Amino acid sequence: MSLKYLTAKLAQQIDEELMNQAGAFSIDQLMELAGLACAQALARVYDKKKYPNVLVCCGPGNQGGDGLVAARHLGMFGYTPTIFMPKPGSKDIYQRLKTQCDNMKIKTIPPSNDTSALREALTSSNVILDAIFGFSFKGPIRAPFDSALPLLSDSRLPIVSVDIPSGWDVEEGNVEGVGLQPDVLVSLTAPKLGVRSFRGRHFLGGRFIPKTLEDNFELNLPVYPGSDQIVELKE
Amino acid sequence: MSLKYLTAKLAQQIDEELMNQAGAFSIDQLMELAGLACAQALARVYDKKKYPNVLVCCGPGNQGGDGLVAARHLGMFGYTPTIFMPKPGSKDIYQRLKTQCDNMKIKTIPPSNDTSALREALTSSNVILDAIFGFSFKGPIRAPFDSALPLLSDSRLPIVSVDIPSGWDVEEGNVEGVGLQPDVLVSLTAPKLGVRSFRGRHFLGGRFIPKTLEDNFELNLPVYPGSDQIVELKE
Repeated sequence: MSLKYLTAKLAQQIDEELMNQAGAFSIDQLMELAGLACAQALARVYDKKKYPNVLVCCGPGNQGGDGLVAARHLGMFGYTPTIFMPKPGSKDIYQRLKTQCDNMKIKTIPPSNDTSALREALTSSNVILDAIFGFSFKGPIRAPFDSALPLLSDSRLPIVSVDIPSGWDVEEGNVEGVGLQPDVLVSLTAPKLGVRSFRGRHFLGGRFIPKTLEDNFELNLPVYPGSDQIVELKE
Repeated sequence: MSLKYLTAKLAQQIDEELMNQAGAFSIDQLMELAGLACAQALARVYDKKKYPNVLVCCGPGNQGGDGLVAARHLGMFGYTPTIFMPKPGSKDIYQRLKTQCDNMKIKTIPPSNDTSALREALTSSNVILDAIFGFSFKGPIRAPFDSALPLLSDSRLPIVSVDIPSGWDVEEGNVEGVGLQPDVLVSLTAPKLGVRSFRGRHFLGGRFIPKTLEDNFELNLPVYPGSDQIVELKE
């Protein structure tokens, strides 16, 4: 039985089941574990001595929240994260997660009408964490991300994408050719259909799916090693 | 500068600072990371092949919540936890954490007027996670824990205590002589005054204290290795 790749709808359904009354998880819990997994995957591949400066790019949705959690944990791990979040989400949880980063003196690129601040930040970054679009993304890419994505690509910095590389269709992949080309991917709960062809280092995070839920959705998840929050997927 | 040992009042103050508006953490987040740290410390010392069955003993307060989170993670790690929670806390979060354990088919010892069910569970357990009393404990030990603690001690099973071994005075230690004698201790955020004389394996968890908070309270925390959620304290 091989690992299941999820449609956007199925990914949404699993999230809902985890958080409904029967599943009982709060978004705070799931986001904490997801963001921690992303930070651990980045740290596994990019050593902080060689790649100290991480540009954490956050979208306005839940994936942006995962990014903020990851930024905080990366700060705890000894990296120097900088947050790029040009369109902050309005939910209370994003505000709280952002405050937690502020309290750790993690810098955020100031909002601006042009891309100069992002360009500047890229010149001093060693690796990018892409937490811009998640499994609820539907194109086209809107401002300010339409101008940001090409800059991230052009930087030639290594990219760690969360769940679905930003700009990719969740089920069809990088069909428009406008998406990021990450070196590392961290799929959460289970990989999405759109990343079937991804050939970089691929980790799975989100070690919180009860066996019954896994069975119901026939996810066929791999075994996570030890007490790790991530498992690397091999061909 | 050596690691600071906290009074009960200081521990309470740090918790409050983390969760007030400025600190911005939710109890869900802190409990998730604390419980994960406890599970990881247990897994570090007691291999699941040799110690598969973990009796997770939970009190009615926040430490019981940490225990429930730890039970869930231990289940994820491949252990078979059983929950002993004779006096469930009434807060909504405990109910949710308990449901998450139920969803993972983690058994709970049924409530009973005598200790037979606990005795029975102890015979099939390999290790105990003691999450009964935390830093807000004030003696004397009340029912049903007054009869439970001696049974845990008499079992001669290895014990991993969270924050303060149950029955110990938070600042004075095991002065009454009625407390558990753990083999392993997991202190959360910073160790409490009462465990200064503890000589077993001692881990620190709760990797979420911002540097400014650490400095304000002069905690002098040790460096956590890599992306671990725990660090072992050495003499």
